[in-house]
Amino acid sequence: MSRNGQHTIAIVGATGAVGEVLLQVLEERHFPVGELRPLASERSAGNTVRFAGKDIPVQLAQPKALDGTDFVFFAATGTLSKELAPEAAKRGAVAIDKSSTWRMDPRVPLVVPEVNPQALKSHEGIIACPNCTTIGFVMALEPIRRAAGLKHVVVTTLQAVSGAGKPGVDELDAQIEATLRGETPSAKVFAAPIAFNVLPLCETFREDGYSTEEVKLLFETRKIMELPDLDVAMTCVRVPVPVGHSATVLIETERPLSADAARAALAAFPGVRVVDDPKHNIFPTPADVAGHDDVLVGRIRKDLGSDRLWLWEVSDNLRKGAATNAVQIAEELIRQGLK
Amino acid sequence: MSRNGQHTIAIVGATGAVGEVLLQVLEERHFPVGELRPLASERSAGNTVRFAGKDIPVQLAQPKALDGTDFVFFAATGTLSKELAPEAAKRGAVAIDKSSTWRMDPRVPLVVPEVNPQALKSHEGIIACPNCTTIGFVMALEPIRRAAGLKHVVVTTLQAVSGAGKPGVDELDAQIEATLRGETPSAKVFAAPIAFNVLPLCETFREDGYSTEEVKLLFETRKIMELPDLDVAMTCVRVPVPVGHSATVLIETERPLSADAARAALAAFPGVRVVDDPKHNIFPTPADVAGHDDVLVGRIRKDLGSDRLWLWEVSDNLRKGAATNAVQIAEELIRQGLK
Repeated sequence: MSRNGQHTIAIVGATGAVGEVLLQVLEERHFPVGELRPLASERSAGNTVRFAGKDIPVQLAQPKALDGTDFVFFAATGTLSKELAPEAAKRGAVAIDKSSTWRMDPRVPLVVPEVNPQALKSHEGIIACPNCTTIGFVMALEPIRRAAGLKHVVVTTLQAVSGAGKPGVDELDAQIEATLRGETPSAKVFAAPIAFNVLPLCETFREDGYSTEEVKLLFETRKIMELPDLDVAMTCVRVPVPVGHSATVLIETERPLSADAARAALAAFPGVRVVDDPKHNIFPTPADVAGHDDVLVGRIRKDLGSDRLWLWEVSDNLRKGAATNAVQIAEELIRQGLK
Repeated sequence: MSRNGQHTIAIVGATGAVGEVLLQVLEERHFPVGELRPLASERSAGNTVRFAGKDIPVQLAQPKALDGTDFVFFAATGTLSKELAPEAAKRGAVAIDKSSTWRMDPRVPLVVPEVNPQALKSHEGIIACPNCTTIGFVMALEPIRRAAGLKHVVVTTLQAVSGAGKPGVDELDAQIEATLRGETPSAKVFAAPIAFNVLPLCETFREDGYSTEEVKLLFETRKIMELPDLDVAMTCVRVPVPVGHSATVLIETERPLSADAARAALAAFPGVRVVDDPKHNIFPTPADVAGHDDVLVGRIRKDLGSDRLWLWEVSDNLRKGAATNAVQIAEELIRQGLK
């Protein structure tokens, strides 16, 4: 339990791509950390991670390592989340899970704090953090929904390789270097070479020809926004970008909404920054958003042939798409007195 | 005029990215070339190009260099096309222009030979080749239109840097190398660094916030398909891929069309190849299409929430998107006895 407003924090998967950013974000945001316990699977236990100027040994992720914790962040495989999140809850901690394991469980809130903080109230010790792609998407949709309602959305995502963790980044780097040496790059993490290429597949294909990523985007958006019938037509594409997911989004609103009104609604929304000045070639890109928490939105304009609205959103998939959102969930729980 | 079925060919812009591929395509397709005249602006005149095993000197692109030609391919700047295409026509040659100069001129046919060969009949000596992005797009739309009619289309393009010619490819390469050396890449051809990044801008922004590329895609598609009211909602994005434009396309048809029927219609269309087997992770990518003439289509599936159809198309923007289409126009003119 928290002592003097300080919290005992465990991070499962502390040595992964999201785990590393979690450590940074906790420090940057001055999260009240009393004790920090980095945890990992056997492969990484025994290493150290750097936090608040100290090297802290990584312990094995197992139930007893969760004794006395207040918050347990899961930034590892779904298997570890499935096993250990209930163990954290059983010990009175709150598990904040970045894997997809608990997201669609009706007992588990799926939360983007700027969008649905009210969902936290009913938590039973496990809270799910949405998919990195979903977070940027709902952050851009919510201001539009509040201004004019949502009828229908079409989205194409362009997703960074770090969406597949460090192995994804390493594979892009290795393939770029192989290509520059004149070799044929080999693919392991992704289904085909991603260097100098784009792939219309994120994660894996389901029986119906949709990717698991695409279906997550639909169902998570509906749950977070509490719009169970919202139609989202989507294609998810992997692009050779290290960090930063982008998306083109075409929105049919319930009530008319001008591009200027949409721009104002987006600019006023916490965590969203409008970067949109085509006259001066100003638009947001993954390179601009990498390392930052805001979701950047640009190319806000009406469709030429209908009343629909186009926009382009980019967000750092490791920060707002993962670590920052998870830490914000913990902050919001404290703010609401729910922990 | 043609002698013994052999033609005198001039290529304006023979040393550029499309010009080089034009030379290759003319050879590969055994186009009946009697004499070949590579032409270029002052900067490149005096170089040589390789054709049919010979080095041929590049002459200055000027009206008198067009005397006695049968076909003049324009793969250079709009300024040269504007000046010299009428000069070619005046001399009885057919100008086949890859620039955007003549595309929307009502006297000039805008032709993708598989889609609207009939438009050639009315030519007055100048024929326009559509934008590289438009060609792949209409090649994928036309079979669907013939099978079930088109009501509405939403498209997001992911366009290769060679869409901006050799300078685009050189800029990507230089930026990749700079990034690997730990330097900050500088951007000149594109509005922001494209290496390890994606940009929601192809070409330049208009006053209304649309890019010139996006508006071309709309108006050229309407003209080629002879569907002046077709609604196309579009966003064009530049991606760090050397060759091969991709697009996600969501199509509302006039009559119901199953994914299987769409797949069959696409597979039966000349110049289109279906590459679509998600069970075995088979989908087309720019790396697959580079160097090939077919437009590859995959990810053919129904929208989860409506009767609309999704597909993913990729085409080589230098070949079918430019050089191959231009040579096919010349072949079709000969076939129809129009030259």
